[in-house]
Amino acid sequence: MTDTAATPARPLEGLRVIDLTRALAGPYATLLLAGLGAQVIKVEDPRGGDLARENSPYVGRNGVTVERAYEDDVSISHLSRARGKMGVSLNLKAPGARGVFEDLCRGADIVVENFTAGTADRLGVGYEVARAVNPGIIYCSLSGFGADARDGGKAMDVIIQALSGAMYTSGDPDAPPVRMGIPVADMLAPVFAVIGILAALEQRHRTGTGQHVDVSMLGALTSFVAIENWSALAAAGMPARTGLTVQRLSPFGVFECADGYVAVVAVHEKLARGLFAAMGAPELGDDPRFASRDARVANAVALEARITQWSRTKPTAEVVRMLEAEGVPAAPVRHPEEALSDPRVMARAETMPIAHPRYPHQSELRTSGIPIRFSEATTGFDAALPIAIGEHNGDVYRDLLGYDAERLAALAEAGVI
Amino acid sequence: MTDTAATPARPLEGLRVIDLTRALAGPYATLLLAGLGAQVIKVEDPRGGDLARENSPYVGRNGVTVERAYEDDVSISHLSRARGKMGVSLNLKAPGARGVFEDLCRGADIVVENFTAGTADRLGVGYEVARAVNPGIIYCSLSGFGADARDGGKAMDVIIQALSGAMYTSGDPDAPPVRMGIPVADMLAPVFAVIGILAALEQRHRTGTGQHVDVSMLGALTSFVAIENWSALAAAGMPARTGLTVQRLSPFGVFECADGYVAVVAVHEKLARGLFAAMGAPELGDDPRFASRDARVANAVALEARITQWSRTKPTAEVVRMLEAEGVPAAPVRHPEEALSDPRVMARAETMPIAHPRYPHQSELRTSGIPIRFSEATTGFDAALPIAIGEHNGDVYRDLLGYDAERLAALAEAGVI
Repeated sequence: MTDTAATPARPLEGLRVIDLTRALAGPYATLLLAGLGAQVIKVEDPRGGDLARENSPYVGRNGVTVERAYEDDVSISHLSRARGKMGVSLNLKAPGARGVFEDLCRGADIVVENFTAGTADRLGVGYEVARAVNPGIIYCSLSGFGADARDGGKAMDVIIQALSGAMYTSGDPDAPPVRMGIPVADMLAPVFAVIGILAALEQRHRTGTGQHVDVSMLGALTSFVAIENWSALAAAGMPARTGLTVQRLSPFGVFECADGYVAVVAVHEKLARGLFAAMGAPELGDDPRFASRDARVANAVALEARITQWSRTKPTAEVVRMLEAEGVPAAPVRHPEEALSDPRVMARAETMPIAHPRYPHQSELRTSGIPIRFSEATTGFDAALPIAIGEHNGDVYRDLLGYDAERLAALAEAGVI
Repeated sequence: MTDTAATPARPLEGLRVIDLTRALAGPYATLLLAGLGAQVIKVEDPRGGDLARENSPYVGRNGVTVERAYEDDVSISHLSRARGKMGVSLNLKAPGARGVFEDLCRGADIVVENFTAGTADRLGVGYEVARAVNPGIIYCSLSGFGADARDGGKAMDVIIQALSGAMYTSGDPDAPPVRMGIPVADMLAPVFAVIGILAALEQRHRTGTGQHVDVSMLGALTSFVAIENWSALAAAGMPARTGLTVQRLSPFGVFECADGYVAVVAVHEKLARGLFAAMGAPELGDDPRFASRDARVANAVALEARITQWSRTKPTAEVVRMLEAEGVPAAPVRHPEEALSDPRVMARAETMPIAHPRYPHQSELRTSGIPIRFSEATTGFDAALPIAIGEHNGDVYRDLLGYDAERLAALAEAGVI
């Protein structure tokens, strides 16, 4: 780190983000911007702060614990999502907060908020206020149903998974729907928010002015679901959900092994023959039930039973090895802990270690990285972490905004910061 | 469309993309760029073209059909993914193709490819070739395991779902893993590719030069999985998969109704009381098993049974209405067809109609839109669609690159285009 001239910059260096978000969706958007090099200033209510601070488990001087034991223990959720961000305190409901917000906006490029639709305007920190002091500002709103929604309401991940159709498409045809274990609605909207912000930046290079960018959780996930042609599939008699396998592509899907499960793709002729060879049953390729793609699809149930009869007697690793030896795409169904430690993923910093800045040796935690590699840029996070609410009030209010000690004391006294 | 001055531009207008991709991941990346206003030129092999062209069902003069009946019937996958793109033919393996590719790169800002790692270089259309003729080019590679992977191999969505841990996190603790019904690995990598491309564009405004952007399907999905703290959850005795409900947040999750399922979030005290009131059993709030958040978590199994006893006797719509009347977040688990037609989603063009350009009245199909709204820009797709391979050879090779009739004839004669 001494020879900074030799280290390529991060792509978004020089941009400043005012981050009014909390929980997961919004903070993940600003986390991506921070990892791409933007300076992110996280604004928290001095009376409470980000809800993610209260998520168990915690990490601190005693390592990972279910309950918070010390003042400077931090929720692992907060540690992960607030990485690389500076933290300031600001009570948006206090008289005087609006002036501070306007000062923050003056030197910023981007504002991100994920309040319920309409709340930012009501608090006096909406797009119109930001634009009035900085016409170049790009102001992004993340909400459940869009910034224009009348009946906003709370939009949790599981509600959006249900409404979007995503939940319905997973699972066996005759079984209940399946809640996805990763919070895909919470995570996808911020990814589109970042695309919107960067596209608006590109437009600003042409026009010189900023704009409001508005992303909805329901819209983001539904647009993903919509890439499949559900009405056409239905019209063609194809089911919307098929469980672990897809019989119209048979053999395709997930099969039981002695100690786990394996994903197998043997859609084409050559792959099907490879599968039969791996099974030690090359004669299946001559069986009229399985000798052509159409025959395999027509007899998918019998074929899947035959594959399982073989795979369930063997460890997953052996099944994968045998299939790969025949050139058949196959992979074990891995536990997340194993997935996060994949050497390929670690080498590319798609997952990365995190630690409490004061007790870095107390745990071995891994979290999300930036899953993009640049030939002429780096990605990654500054060492900053708002352990306490208002951790970086001095760096931001004094050093960046130029507030003097007297003004800072008055703001603190009045409960504004 | 006559008063174009009154229509705000799309954010990426003026940028040109050379699109070497096929199947789903890559084409979805360039679809997003097209919807944001970039000019996308899709390059297809004159001997075959995009694999998505062969996906059943098709649409054409007879409406939606399982098998292709007419020459100009198009796969709905192709219709959806190639929207707004111009199509040219180019056989990358033919002598002379490299010169055409170089000419395409000269006037372009962005190249996107999703061949197996190493293939683009071998074909003579890799980053080094593009950069040599255009140092400003931003060249994005999408692959299963990264552009640097030695053992690339085929990376299908189901393989990546298995390896990433995503599949493991869904489903009941004692049941098999669950394949997500939407191709989340295929879809997520391109979203990060677009972020990488736009971040590189921002950097180009500072430096004047382009770069190589490299996104892996495994890395993109694993980084999503990694936002949860799996090792800490395990250390704290919390399971990685909990099925339809999450008992440590009880009552939280998906419950059976008479005709379907409902998602309910009643994590906090006020919401739990609202749920009990909706159930017509406010006394449950005084039951020592359910009277506090800790008690509800400790007695989650009994609580969930009690909720289901109520919900399974009523239609989903009635359960949702009763819960909403008490301020409890709730939503029906919807079929994708219903989700795609949500008036909120349609009004925001997060899903949108598509039709065969020659037979627009033969079907009512909906597909993905751009789930981002801009106050000073529009999104959406040009009317262009490469129905045949090389549909826009004249527009591109003649009008944009300035090839004369003689050269075009020679290229066609030699099988280059």
